[in-house]
Amino acid sequence: MSHVVKKRKLDKTRQERLYFDSYTDVTIHEEMIADHVRTNTYRTAILRNSESIRGKVVLDVGAGTGVLSVFCVQAGARKVYAVEACSIAEQAVRIVQQNNMADRIEVIRGTVETVELPEKVEVIVSEWMGYALLHESMLNSVLYARDKWLKPGGVILPSKAELYVAPIGDPVVEERLNFWYTVKDQYGVDMSCMSDFARRCLMNTDITVSSVTVEDVLSHPARFAELDLYSVTAEQLRSVRGEFRCESFGSAAVNAFCVFFTVTFPCPDPPHALLLSTSPFKPETHWKQAVLYLDAPVDVVQDTAVRGEISMFPSEESARHICIHVDYAVGEHKRQSKTFSIPDWSGEAQS
Amino acid sequence: MSHVVKKRKLDKTRQERLYFDSYTDVTIHEEMIADHVRTNTYRTAILRNSESIRGKVVLDVGAGTGVLSVFCVQAGARKVYAVEACSIAEQAVRIVQQNNMADRIEVIRGTVETVELPEKVEVIVSEWMGYALLHESMLNSVLYARDKWLKPGGVILPSKAELYVAPIGDPVVEERLNFWYTVKDQYGVDMSCMSDFARRCLMNTDITVSSVTVEDVLSHPARFAELDLYSVTAEQLRSVRGEFRCESFGSAAVNAFCVFFTVTFPCPDPPHALLLSTSPFKPETHWKQAVLYLDAPVDVVQDTAVRGEISMFPSEESARHICIHVDYAVGEHKRQSKTFSIPDWSGEAQS
Repeated sequence: MSHVVKKRKLDKTRQERLYFDSYTDVTIHEEMIADHVRTNTYRTAILRNSESIRGKVVLDVGAGTGVLSVFCVQAGARKVYAVEACSIAEQAVRIVQQNNMADRIEVIRGTVETVELPEKVEVIVSEWMGYALLHESMLNSVLYARDKWLKPGGVILPSKAELYVAPIGDPVVEERLNFWYTVKDQYGVDMSCMSDFARRCLMNTDITVSSVTVEDVLSHPARFAELDLYSVTAEQLRSVRGEFRCESFGSAAVNAFCVFFTVTFPCPDPPHALLLSTSPFKPETHWKQAVLYLDAPVDVVQDTAVRGEISMFPSEESARHICIHVDYAVGEHKRQSKTFSIPDWSGEAQS
Repeated sequence: MSHVVKKRKLDKTRQERLYFDSYTDVTIHEEMIADHVRTNTYRTAILRNSESIRGKVVLDVGAGTGVLSVFCVQAGARKVYAVEACSIAEQAVRIVQQNNMADRIEVIRGTVETVELPEKVEVIVSEWMGYALLHESMLNSVLYARDKWLKPGGVILPSKAELYVAPIGDPVVEERLNFWYTVKDQYGVDMSCMSDFARRCLMNTDITVSSVTVEDVLSHPARFAELDLYSVTAEQLRSVRGEFRCESFGSAAVNAFCVFFTVTFPCPDPPHALLLSTSPFKPETHWKQAVLYLDAPVDVVQDTAVRGEISMFPSEESARHICIHVDYAVGEHKRQSKTFSIPDWSGEAQS
């Protein structure tokens, strides 16, 4: 008996306020800090790039609690500007003091689009990735900061992002669809006709954020887009698209596509890149995976080709909300397409 | 990185629309049907009351999928009017047909406040209970139906509701507050100063719906209010209040109060009442318990008295949202008070 608030059109100021308000709760910061894959990869990447950071000026875009700024000082940064728009900035100030870095880190409350820095910077660090990489579109702010504040030849951490897709099965959804056939045995009421309604509700157009189990991934993931943070433009982010082709490992029912991302840090020493991956084949992160349900399950056999094109673009209702359009064909079935979006109420339920 | 929609004032039409929209998803109906305690207790209660139902006319208030209406026909009802305002009524129509009860159950789409029935009824059945019993205030609709459509001497199932409170500990919150002291060991950044911010966020004024573990209940629960569905008025529901007094089992830290309810069905054969309980000492239901956090933990020892007064009333922003005011004293500590409400975004997170 819970109350779900549905999608609606919000005016821009209200959108901004809701967006920044959503980061005033401790839960989201706890979740991010406690995400060892995220925090440790950033920590390692920053410390391994100390060559580029030592004695330099750094801008941390969307600094949150300031943890990345602290890592940068530990890597030898002369000065870090930690820009944060929401009230968590007050906590960042306290954390900087508690770590005796008030002379090195300046927390600046405001959006990176509006704040004035006293100088240009040699390094930009940011943890800007949202669900399905682009949800909340904080990357736009990083690009804005790059164009306005980064010196020529400066470093961006991370420097590259890649998007992947794979067809998946979903035993939980299958069990939930089957549930309605079990009601008669349990209570003597035939509710099997609900299964069709359940399918329409569960295999809907929402982008569902959930942890995909390795066993449910039905093919090798295919990369469909890559963003070079040194060159990509805000204009290009208005439509991130690419083709994909996967071949099924074996016989299964495809229920959905799973979209995930990696970001890459340069790593001069040892000289190979450091990857932060949200793949279902890697340890879980708080980003989990983005799951896009087909309208109905489609059967595949070994080597059945699943191919198509994905495009990601900001929602018309709210520029920070991502939409994903998938145009696809499974084997010899006819081409289909479906557009997905993040539901407005994708808040955390207390549990 | 999730987006939380904050509380706001909504106009009445919008509130109604959001409320009824929230029942168009299959998840909530699946959760209710799959709640064996709920569905089996209603089924048993209806079948055991077949004496009162056989050959009679029944009104099912907020029928949902119509499962209670089907039980009533199984108990011998001559006619059931299944009144349901939201579009799940379309599924109820299909379920009624699938169970060959179209001649006995008439699904009527509309609110009980506005629909016209062709006749008065001898029995009202309804599963109207929300979180903390009164959230969503569907009981008002049952009382309206009672006063308008129930014949004198008619039966209401269930016929009584009782509210209970107990002080509880919460090891999850304690662990989450402690988390910030562990960050230094994990990442070399001292974040212990976040613990205070975390406490303010976690021990806030939200009514948290969660499953309380038996071991965390620190005293026998105390009953603080009782509603007789035959006599209670809508006016009385505008403020449901009562005093309580609990004595601590042993030494512990009180983090919160836990509020839960029972409803009672008359049961002529065998002649004792049938209880649907959402107590943490009983098997879990989808209502779980309502948890109200203190501002900070308070230590108690064996037999420390925890006493006070609770009042529940509709929120000013939205009449369907419940507020709970607790005025309490723990042992010799001075009297305190705190008002809680259900957050607007208490939707289900997909997981």
